[in-house]
Amino acid sequence: MTEQISIGKYATLLTLTNKETAKQLMPQCEQMQIIVGKIGTMSLNKIISSVETAARREGIISESHYRETHALYHAILEAVNGITRGELSIGEIMRTVGLKFAVVRGCPYEDQEEGEWIAVSLYGTIGAPIKGKEHETIGLGINHI
Amino acid sequence: MTEQISIGKYATLLTLTNKETAKQLMPQCEQMQIIVGKIGTMSLNKIISSVETAARREGIISESHYRETHALYHAILEAVNGITRGELSIGEIMRTVGLKFAVVRGCPYEDQEEGEWIAVSLYGTIGAPIKGKEHETIGLGINHI
Amino acid sequence: MTEQISIGKYATLLTLTNKETAKQLMPQCEQMQIIVGKIGTMSLNKIISSVETAARREGIISESHYRETHALYHAILEAVNGITRGELSIGEIMRTVGLKFAVVRGCPYEDQEEGEWIAVSLYGTIGAPIKGKEHETIGLGINHI
Amino acid sequence: MTEQISIGKYATLLTLTNKETAKQLMPQCEQMQIIVGKIGTMSLNKIISSVETAARREGIISESHYRETHALYHAILEAVNGITRGELSIGEIMRTVGLKFAVVRGCPYEDQEEGEWIAVSLYGTIGAPIKGKEHETIGLGINHI
Amino acid sequence: MTEQISIGKYATLLTLTNKETAKQLMPQCEQMQIIVGKIGTMSLNKIISSVETAARREGIISESHYRETHALYHAILEAVNGITRGELSIGEIMRTVGLKFAVVRGCPYEDQEEGEWIAVSLYGTIGAPIKGKEHETIGLGINHI
Amino acid sequence: MTEQISIGKYATLLTLTNKETAKQLMPQCEQMQIIVGKIGTMSLNKIISSVETAARREGIISESHYRETHALYHAILEAVNGITRGELSIGEIMRTVGLKFAVVRGCPYEDQEEGEWIAVSLYGTIGAPIKGKEHETIGLGINHI
Repeated sequence: MTEQISIGKYATLLTLTNKETAKQLMPQCEQMQIIVGKIGTMSLNKIISSVETAARREGIISESHYRETHALYHAILEAVNGITRGELSIGEIMRTVGLKFAVVRGCPYEDQEEGEWIAVSLYGTIGAPIKGKEHETIGLGINHI
Repeated sequence: MTEQISIGKYATLLTLTNKETAKQLMPQCEQMQIIVGKIGTMSLNKIISSVETAARREGIISESHYRETHALYHAILEAVNGITRGELSIGEIMRTVGLKFAVVRGCPYEDQEEGEWIAVSLYGTIGAPIKGKEHETIGLGINHI
Repeated sequence: MTEQISIGKYATLLTLTNKETAKQLMPQCEQMQIIVGKIGTMSLNKIISSVETAARREGIISESHYRETHALYHAILEAVNGITRGELSIGEIMRTVGLKFAVVRGCPYEDQEEGEWIAVSLYGTIGAPIKGKEHETIGLGINHI
Repeated sequence: MTEQISIGKYATLLTLTNKETAKQLMPQCEQMQIIVGKIGTMSLNKIISSVETAARREGIISESHYRETHALYHAILEAVNGITRGELSIGEIMRTVGLKFAVVRGCPYEDQEEGEWIAVSLYGTIGAPIKGKEHETIGLGINHI
Repeated sequence: MTEQISIGKYATLLTLTNKETAKQLMPQCEQMQIIVGKIGTMSLNKIISSVETAARREGIISESHYRETHALYHAILEAVNGITRGELSIGEIMRTVGLKFAVVRGCPYEDQEEGEWIAVSLYGTIGAPIKGKEHETIGLGINHI
Repeated sequence: MTEQISIGKYATLLTLTNKETAKQLMPQCEQMQIIVGKIGTMSLNKIISSVETAARREGIISESHYRETHALYHAILEAVNGITRGELSIGEIMRTVGLKFAVVRGCPYEDQEEGEWIAVSLYGTIGAPIKGKEHETIGLGINHI
């Protein structure tokens, strides 16, 4: 039977709290590769390119292989669907976001043949483009890599 | 200026960890009303009715007023959109979910005239209807009540 | 230049008010073929089949030609999208509807070569499956036939 | 039991006909606050900002409270979903709209504890960006405020 | 009973292979009107306008009648939904496409009263805006005209 | 630079024509693993389970690894989105499908480190649940495995 390390929970704790708290709550994840960052925008493509660029620059995915870009891209898109809750759109429908992001890469299943997976967490605020007229939002995407 | 208590983060920590950890990480939320529960299903309407029933039974929303049911309903639906990431469907597309849910009700804004808001968090697994063939998923919905 | 008779407005007035009021407000539509009916359900396919069956039985579309069924089907689907506002689902997400429907068929454009078009209006309530816990909803679909 | 004044019907009659006709057909709505306006655009955010700006300027929602902006925003988005029928997009998919809008605020339920609700109606034409190559479209959104 | 010539298959073979191969595989389609073309873009509206412009210029649809524009538009939109697989968006979510398109117009049903129909095929690549980081994609839309 | 063998085109030719024609048109794909089959249904989950079961039984994916099930599942879902063109629903909106399916697994990129990918093609008819009242539909999904 396959047993699972919760890389999605770990990614989410990294955006909700901070590296220290997340690692303390989930010591089993210390082998995982992680990155965290921030992005504020009215364009979905800025969210995608910010996470992709950070992931490539910090070596969480290979720059040269499409396979890894493809895996990360779909994980980001799933996380963005959580953020936008039903309509894959922000600026076009007058919303702006301020987000913290985290990417976690590692082997979550006990059976090592399940290989590596990637988790993308987005957490922050969404709302009108006026300070304070916003509420929280969260998204998580997971894919095999 | 309006300052915000993160009820969405609190709701999410309640599903990711437990009441003790969530309260310890966010002592500013101790005034908030909360419920937590669990649901495993292949039908979206079971997710919705489980959260609604728990919320009514434990008095987090009024049984008699449509206004409160309406606010909770849309918060649940937004959380479900995060869980399903783009397609509002589970059993119909051969997916099953095992979820922990939390509902938080309280006043997140410093300006008391912003009134009460409600946050619904869903966290667990989604996947094929075979044990182990699943990965994590998360959703958060927030609404004024 | 093409000038337009508002068959969508006419169909909507038929569901919002009644035949007498609609005809009085839009005397220019007296040549149009119309049907009106009612449907209460938790299944989208019941909405579709109720409108299609009524339209065939009262001769607003031909029973034998797929072409006309195809045109009506897509007009109904567009109206249903207005009713459900973003998620093409009712019972699966715990909603029930009580609707009045109207179908209008005729030539809305001054240029007769634009031929016949069809308008489908749906108006009524959507909400929790509990009397009173519901609000209004409307949808309109238009297609060439 | 809760009895309902049809604020959605009233909002729709305001966009389909005019203030005089709408008031005559629904005298029970005379206490409701209303605004009407027009917008022609290829951008969804122009529809949203036009309705929001008019609503704030004419005092139908409070300028300072996010709560009211949030309620109106989601009502507009639901109405826009009716207009676009399935794809929340206009200019990006080569469509342009010419719309009349109406916002109605008031207490539709007999039980006064249900409080105030808001209805947003959009009615007009959608089509290719060429005069005459267009047909009608309608949308309605309703929310508690 | 209505028998069918597969205009969708013919349109798809025109984009997958070439006119000679397609005609050889489907000699029954030789009466059909066809056009083929190419488009590379990050904007959905460029796909739509390229196909519409080619179809008008080569006389596959009438320039003056909205009816035919309306039929073609919805066929294109359905094909685009196949290309984008769930989210009607390309550049906004950091995707670029390189597509071959084909439009076929003719009478696919044995019963001549079913009249003319139109098929739109799109085939090519979708992916990151970097050469090689892309995979294939296909879409087909069919409508009565 | 990565060069590509068109596994999506190959999968599509397998559903549009037959194994002999597909292989003759694309001799470069002879190393690829393939399966073909048929399904007629009003339920999306029957499409998914038919393709998954055939793929496992004929050894195109591993029965024991979730990783491969996950890759195939998302490829099927993308193909289904092409079939349903915008609404991930069939029976619920009164549509029935008769489909041929093909799955292709192999290394499409020249750079062998890009590894194996999977393509799922669906082609057939969609329409009212009445013989003849239907038209063609196509879908293609591609994923790394």
